[in-house]
Amino acid sequence: MMLNNTFLLPVRVYYQDTDAGGVVYHSTHLNFMERARYEWLREMGFDVNSLIKIHKTLFMVRSLEIEYFKPAVLDDLLHISVHVTELGRSRITLTQEILCSHIRLVCAKIHVVCVGTDTLKPMSIPVPLREKIGKPA
Amino acid sequence: MMLNNTFLLPVRVYYQDTDAGGVVYHSTHLNFMERARYEWLREMGFDVNSLIKIHKTLFMVRSLEIEYFKPAVLDDLLHISVHVTELGRSRITLTQEILCSHIRLVCAKIHVVCVGTDTLKPMSIPVPLREKIGKPA
Amino acid sequence: MMLNNTFLLPVRVYYQDTDAGGVVYHSTHLNFMERARYEWLREMGFDVNSLIKIHKTLFMVRSLEIEYFKPAVLDDLLHISVHVTELGRSRITLTQEILCSHIRLVCAKIHVVCVGTDTLKPMSIPVPLREKIGKPA
Amino acid sequence: MMLNNTFLLPVRVYYQDTDAGGVVYHSTHLNFMERARYEWLREMGFDVNSLIKIHKTLFMVRSLEIEYFKPAVLDDLLHISVHVTELGRSRITLTQEILCSHIRLVCAKIHVVCVGTDTLKPMSIPVPLREKIGKPA
Repeated sequence: MMLNNTFLLPVRVYYQDTDAGGVVYHSTHLNFMERARYEWLREMGFDVNSLIKIHKTLFMVRSLEIEYFKPAVLDDLLHISVHVTELGRSRITLTQEILCSHIRLVCAKIHVVCVGTDTLKPMSIPVPLREKIGKPA
Repeated sequence: MMLNNTFLLPVRVYYQDTDAGGVVYHSTHLNFMERARYEWLREMGFDVNSLIKIHKTLFMVRSLEIEYFKPAVLDDLLHISVHVTELGRSRITLTQEILCSHIRLVCAKIHVVCVGTDTLKPMSIPVPLREKIGKPA
Repeated sequence: MMLNNTFLLPVRVYYQDTDAGGVVYHSTHLNFMERARYEWLREMGFDVNSLIKIHKTLFMVRSLEIEYFKPAVLDDLLHISVHVTELGRSRITLTQEILCSHIRLVCAKIHVVCVGTDTLKPMSIPVPLREKIGKPA
Repeated sequence: MMLNNTFLLPVRVYYQDTDAGGVVYHSTHLNFMERARYEWLREMGFDVNSLIKIHKTLFMVRSLEIEYFKPAVLDDLLHISVHVTELGRSRITLTQEILCSHIRLVCAKIHVVCVGTDTLKPMSIPVPLREKIGKPA
């Protein structure tokens, strides 16, 4: 779902996502964010298989910053956002948030790099994908 | 560590292994069991890389039965056992238990199959590994 | 979604679900099955929070058998089924399958037990839930 | 193990830690880092149970930055470091690295906060732990 140029994926919290502190385990939020990035790519027509088989590329996380404001808990219906803030030759910078009932629980800035499937070296983002992403805000 | 023909791997329980019920999440016990199987193989001289690169084989879980008697909790020091009960041409049947202070928390019977890395089809267990495993009880 | 008395949950396979063998990691299928069980309970009006807060109960996996027929791979759209086969006083036996394009990849028989949130001892399945589940095939 | 005021935990990479890209999944490195932090606390005499039961505190990750330089792969023997860089009233800033054969694969700066187990509000780090951590570099 796109909202003001931001993609949103709903994700339900199950026992598998939580820890004995009663909250979503901190690294699990990064798993939720990966799901949202791939659904965002799919919505633009670039599912992971076409990226690998047709374009011979995949995206790797190069670095990220993440801040936890409030915990998410069992059975929460979260919304995971994807918003592109910078688009380089081979690098995309995204802001991703985790929301629950419009409250921001987590915020991350994530740098992913497009690499060749054989070499794992950086290569240009495929042109049709670049055009779809367009000029980010 | 081998004890009466049974290999034992110590594993500590961290937050990442638990869920909001305050106990180790049920599928996580299978992760602990995988760790023990690979350390048992390593102790016999068959680390996963030599299996893949020299013997062109890997092991896949074909089926398993698991029973949960008592929960494991945060900070428990568990011991995961590996005991071979049947040794076929390409199949190994193992009994694995999860113990805490000599109390049995979980018990599983696991069937793994030796497959070729290229074909993923069953192939004979490499002879030197078969000889190491020897005649199970 | 209910189909012939069987609940089906669609689940997409992401990198986080796979392993270096290129397939969905064996214990991850149990995570998919947990998601389907909780969505099935929710569809009957028994989300996990109402079970805990109103009925003071939760479900724990007591034992299971699982068989892996074919691997699931990155980007597969799986369907996870839930089908009740036995309904005891405190125990439910379910058959769960993982399907991809109508092909059965994984099949499991799972025993869950209704326990009190305070005691973790078995207690009767709440009557309104029992009536919803009804007489299984 | 302490080395030049830095704690190091060895961690082996299993299938469960990898993804279909053949490398350790990016969020799994944070799981490795959690294990190292808790073993570091244990080495100082503050296992998680004594923190919870005696000191009524637990540590939550408040924010972090992580950079991935090189991938870790199946069967790698990693060393996860813990090094305190700042010690506040309720906050600890740590640098953690993931090394393989002395090569740095991953580096993170992690802020954890000491909170009360009941309130989840920030509270002072227990004095005996603070004294053990001492004056960081």
